[in-house]
Amino acid sequence: MTPEAVLAELEKVLLARKGADPETSYVASLYADPARMLKKLGEEATELVIAAAEGKRQAIVHEAADLWFHTLVVLAHHGLSAQDVLAELARRFGVSGHEEKRRRKGEGA
Amino acid sequence: MTPEAVLAELEKVLLARKGADPETSYVASLYADPARMLKKLGEEATELVIAAAEGKRQAIVHEAADLWFHTLVVLAHHGLSAQDVLAELARRFGVSGHEEKRRRKGEGA
Amino acid sequence: MTPEAVLAELEKVLLARKGADPETSYVASLYADPARMLKKLGEEATELVIAAAEGKRQAIVHEAADLWFHTLVVLAHHGLSAQDVLAELARRFGVSGHEEKRRRKGEGA
Amino acid sequence: MTPEAVLAELEKVLLARKGADPETSYVASLYADPARMLKKLGEEATELVIAAAEGKRQAIVHEAADLWFHTLVVLAHHGLSAQDVLAELARRFGVSGHEEKRRRKGEGA
Repeated sequence: MTPEAVLAELEKVLLARKGADPETSYVASLYADPARMLKKLGEEATELVIAAAEGKRQAIVHEAADLWFHTLVVLAHHGLSAQDVLAELARRFGVSGHEEKRRRKGEGA
Repeated sequence: MTPEAVLAELEKVLLARKGADPETSYVASLYADPARMLKKLGEEATELVIAAAEGKRQAIVHEAADLWFHTLVVLAHHGLSAQDVLAELARRFGVSGHEEKRRRKGEGA
Repeated sequence: MTPEAVLAELEKVLLARKGADPETSYVASLYADPARMLKKLGEEATELVIAAAEGKRQAIVHEAADLWFHTLVVLAHHGLSAQDVLAELARRFGVSGHEEKRRRKGEGA
Repeated sequence: MTPEAVLAELEKVLLARKGADPETSYVASLYADPARMLKKLGEEATELVIAAAEGKRQAIVHEAADLWFHTLVVLAHHGLSAQDVLAELARRFGVSGHEEKRRRKGEGA
């Protein structure tokens, strides 16, 4: 699996977990407890902040992976996908990809 | 630009902002103020939690895009990239992509 | 005003702001925008995490004050007060105050 | 114990836990693992955000108590106390206690 395909592959797994047993599947246990699912987001974001504040590069990669993983779970739970997020990012950056259109503040990227 | 290419394209922009003026570039202003950069992470994660708790699908996509964007800024600031994060996710899910190896708890995905 | 009275005094201010103009009162502007009110909580918690990770004692006090202030705003918005929170803490710690009864895990404080 | 005394009483407990065994004391286990201590802050803040977004008053009190408790642990770990935070809040609100001096933005409370 190339890194490029990992988001799509991950989402297949996440969708397949929709019918799984919360007792044996970590992802299914999050689907079954939305408050805990969201709590994980806050927790992983905090861990990324700590890793970055401490300048620990390996921990940064690890915590960013945790954060993105739990974002994908939230997206899947709401029938959304990484493609929606990437399309939104592409839209902001325009076709050329050379400039972000900051809607709210009109600031350049 | 296909959605698949957006992460790579975005990172080019983020790298190019490394020499930019914090007065005119939002990203450069974050590079110049790491505490504010990390604060944005916590802020965007909280906004995603709120959007998800309210079940607002459009807001979820929007806030997830904000969260991933600021994650990319943190990665770029530390000389890391989305590829590192995706490779970490691929590693956890194995070649087949059908199972997450939860290191810490040995739970199935 | 003794420090002991500050929570009660602060809450009087917060209640008085319930009828205030969001244009001129910061607290009233938070009451008028609950999502922003909650976003501030996440933001201030992140700032406290950063200050503590960096071991900056003055910043820790400052950010903890911000965090508690915005907690008080959330409490006031929901018709609750610091007294409710302190009573909950007192309840957990028992009359003697010498032991926390950790409900969830049965762990000693 | 009156609610007013609970912060002081709690802090006595937290200080006493400084020499305790992390295996038997929850607080001592946090002192022994500062990253986990900070992670709890982010986690509890997120839980308060979720409780408030859902308008669950009892959960708001519960999560605010958790958040303040873990703030007190961070303060104690750095040789600080609730008195420092309350003094900072009192300072911002002035002697009369009727107005918050918002330093950063000059906004009224």
